[in-house]
Amino acid sequence: MAEPARGFQRSEFLRRCGALQAGLRAAGMDALLLTTAADIFYVTGFLTRFWESPARPWFVVVPAKGDPVAVIPSIGAELMGQTWVAEIRTWDAPDPEDDGVSLLATTLGDLVPEQGVIGTPMGMETQLRMALGDYFALTARLAPRRMVDATDVVQRVREVKSEAEVDKIRAACAVADRTFARVPEFASLGRPLDAVFRDFQRVLLEEGADWVSYTAGGAGQGGYGDVISPATAQPLARGDVLMLDTGAVRDGYFCDFDRNYAIGDVAPDTMRAHAALFAATDLALETLRPGMTAADVHRILCEGMRAHGATPGGGRLGHGLGVTLTEWPSFTPKDQTVLRSGMVLTLEPGAQIAPGRILVHEENIVLREGGPELLSTRAPADLPVLE
Amino acid sequence: MAEPARGFQRSEFLRRCGALQAGLRAAGMDALLLTTAADIFYVTGFLTRFWESPARPWFVVVPAKGDPVAVIPSIGAELMGQTWVAEIRTWDAPDPEDDGVSLLATTLGDLVPEQGVIGTPMGMETQLRMALGDYFALTARLAPRRMVDATDVVQRVREVKSEAEVDKIRAACAVADRTFARVPEFASLGRPLDAVFRDFQRVLLEEGADWVSYTAGGAGQGGYGDVISPATAQPLARGDVLMLDTGAVRDGYFCDFDRNYAIGDVAPDTMRAHAALFAATDLALETLRPGMTAADVHRILCEGMRAHGATPGGGRLGHGLGVTLTEWPSFTPKDQTVLRSGMVLTLEPGAQIAPGRILVHEENIVLREGGPELLSTRAPADLPVLE
Repeated sequence: MAEPARGFQRSEFLRRCGALQAGLRAAGMDALLLTTAADIFYVTGFLTRFWESPARPWFVVVPAKGDPVAVIPSIGAELMGQTWVAEIRTWDAPDPEDDGVSLLATTLGDLVPEQGVIGTPMGMETQLRMALGDYFALTARLAPRRMVDATDVVQRVREVKSEAEVDKIRAACAVADRTFARVPEFASLGRPLDAVFRDFQRVLLEEGADWVSYTAGGAGQGGYGDVISPATAQPLARGDVLMLDTGAVRDGYFCDFDRNYAIGDVAPDTMRAHAALFAATDLALETLRPGMTAADVHRILCEGMRAHGATPGGGRLGHGLGVTLTEWPSFTPKDQTVLRSGMVLTLEPGAQIAPGRILVHEENIVLREGGPELLSTRAPADLPVLE
Repeated sequence: MAEPARGFQRSEFLRRCGALQAGLRAAGMDALLLTTAADIFYVTGFLTRFWESPARPWFVVVPAKGDPVAVIPSIGAELMGQTWVAEIRTWDAPDPEDDGVSLLATTLGDLVPEQGVIGTPMGMETQLRMALGDYFALTARLAPRRMVDATDVVQRVREVKSEAEVDKIRAACAVADRTFARVPEFASLGRPLDAVFRDFQRVLLEEGADWVSYTAGGAGQGGYGDVISPATAQPLARGDVLMLDTGAVRDGYFCDFDRNYAIGDVAPDTMRAHAALFAATDLALETLRPGMTAADVHRILCEGMRAHGATPGGGRLGHGLGVTLTEWPSFTPKDQTVLRSGMVLTLEPGAQIAPGRILVHEENIVLREGGPELLSTRAPADLPVLE
């Protein structure tokens, strides 16, 4: 598979911006204020790891008509100048007297009439990436303009991926596929888990990840206790299941799937649970269609597990994926988000084998009109054995 | 150097919590609401890469008297249960109907009287890591209790590191030191910059980083254009200066320093700028003392550069360091934060050689009563040459 070229055509950003603007107008909003790495990358193509520093806020304003305006620290002017965004306003951040608030207020004041409405994401799975005190100062400056929740505007656009985006995520998945194929090189009986985690990240880089924003996993007798703990120096033991999970990044897009391995023989109930997870995933791969809800996917995965004798674990059983490790919707009983063609999703059924012992299986898909297309290479039906 | 043991003693957390509580009482606050990975790790020791997922909010409440309470998604209960925090309240997140708001409101309602005051960080270099709409719902539920800015309470405690914390940062710096010593293995004339960035991360892992949350750098003829762009496939050319910068993480603590390398001979003005940066850093290493302000450090570094004929670049010339890649204060002309013994800081003088051509030099220190102690191994006075 040829690697997709870096970045996107200008037409891709025009399409995204146009779709957001249609959403703004439909919702009666005059402008959209974006503050997070993901939203700003999505609209502008501005890609940097510098977001790791909490020191500076960054803003992009998408007016309901016209071109977006970046209001950013001057340290980012050079890189933002390489994107399609033509209007870039900068200040010398961090500034304890006025960290961009006046510049942003002026920008929004220019673009939005006094009786106008400014949207910014305030809902589930969103965050405001600026100091809360500065947000309050901004809204006071902008009054009588009102700030409202624009979560729907952003999520309905971002959740449907273009083919160019699907290609990026497929390439990130391929990095992880190649890495998982090399796990026998560095994971075996007696190897400490923290060394395995370190090598896992090293090989992800060797196989083409630009950076590795997320790795997780676990190991334990016939299952693991949780999936978010850092690795300890505990050596892999006969009867352990080893799980490795990754959000490797290539060109700003994530993969997010895991693989399980048996260290020697594992307990029969673990093998049965694994078979049930595999079957539940197959069921979802066969039956998911646009128009179903996120809650439907949760139900299908639970039914698939139960039909094979497994007890579904709590929490969500998959989610969206793209410019962040996880995106909405969440496959829970309560999430009524409607699935649409072009959504990139994870199928992540988890089973409770015994108290403190779980097993999680994960694949990445893009939903098409006719059903799911795998972006990850399907896991082997039988748990691979490492000696 | 022996690696410090993982984690901290319970006494360390008791000290931190006690210091925060003294600050709360002095400020007239009844409780502190924390929402970020850094603040929650600081108080509890809860360390996971799971924060990469924006799906779920996490909360820790530190009452002015008594033990902290974690209000977290149930997926984190196992890991939080391994910390010193005894009271852990969970909900099944993400929940589109009530994503922890009721549980958090009840918890704060139990701990804070109706006429009471709840602090949360709202100032420079802080963020509220929860949906803004949920924050508004929370404050409505808590009224007449008031929410106020607790930035000072948190920052005055976190900014002075214990010896155990200094040991962690020193160990992270040692990982980068060993990696920089190996740069000649993977950076040389003709090598593409993106391959160098990838190998840089790989070697950081080999040398003991748990994960690599930040790498940056640049390369260009006699200097680079900026320091936040991702690497391109451009091969290193004779006359380039290569800069590599990292925030590698070990046991939850960051290093943050860079190193410069000459690809063959570089221009004389670049050599002079490098010498000026080195001398300015020496001046700061000799003269910094507790009681000075962040603005004083900026002035000293600028004077040091100018005394050697260099033009200081814009932006800040260093900052705090610890559980995030960058912490307050910022070495700018406006930051009046007073330096205190135990602060871990970066000295990061940058010079403008010509338009679009800069050079940045960085060291990590802990400030002692008698002056700075280096945590990074001092860079060589002469720019190392790679062929």
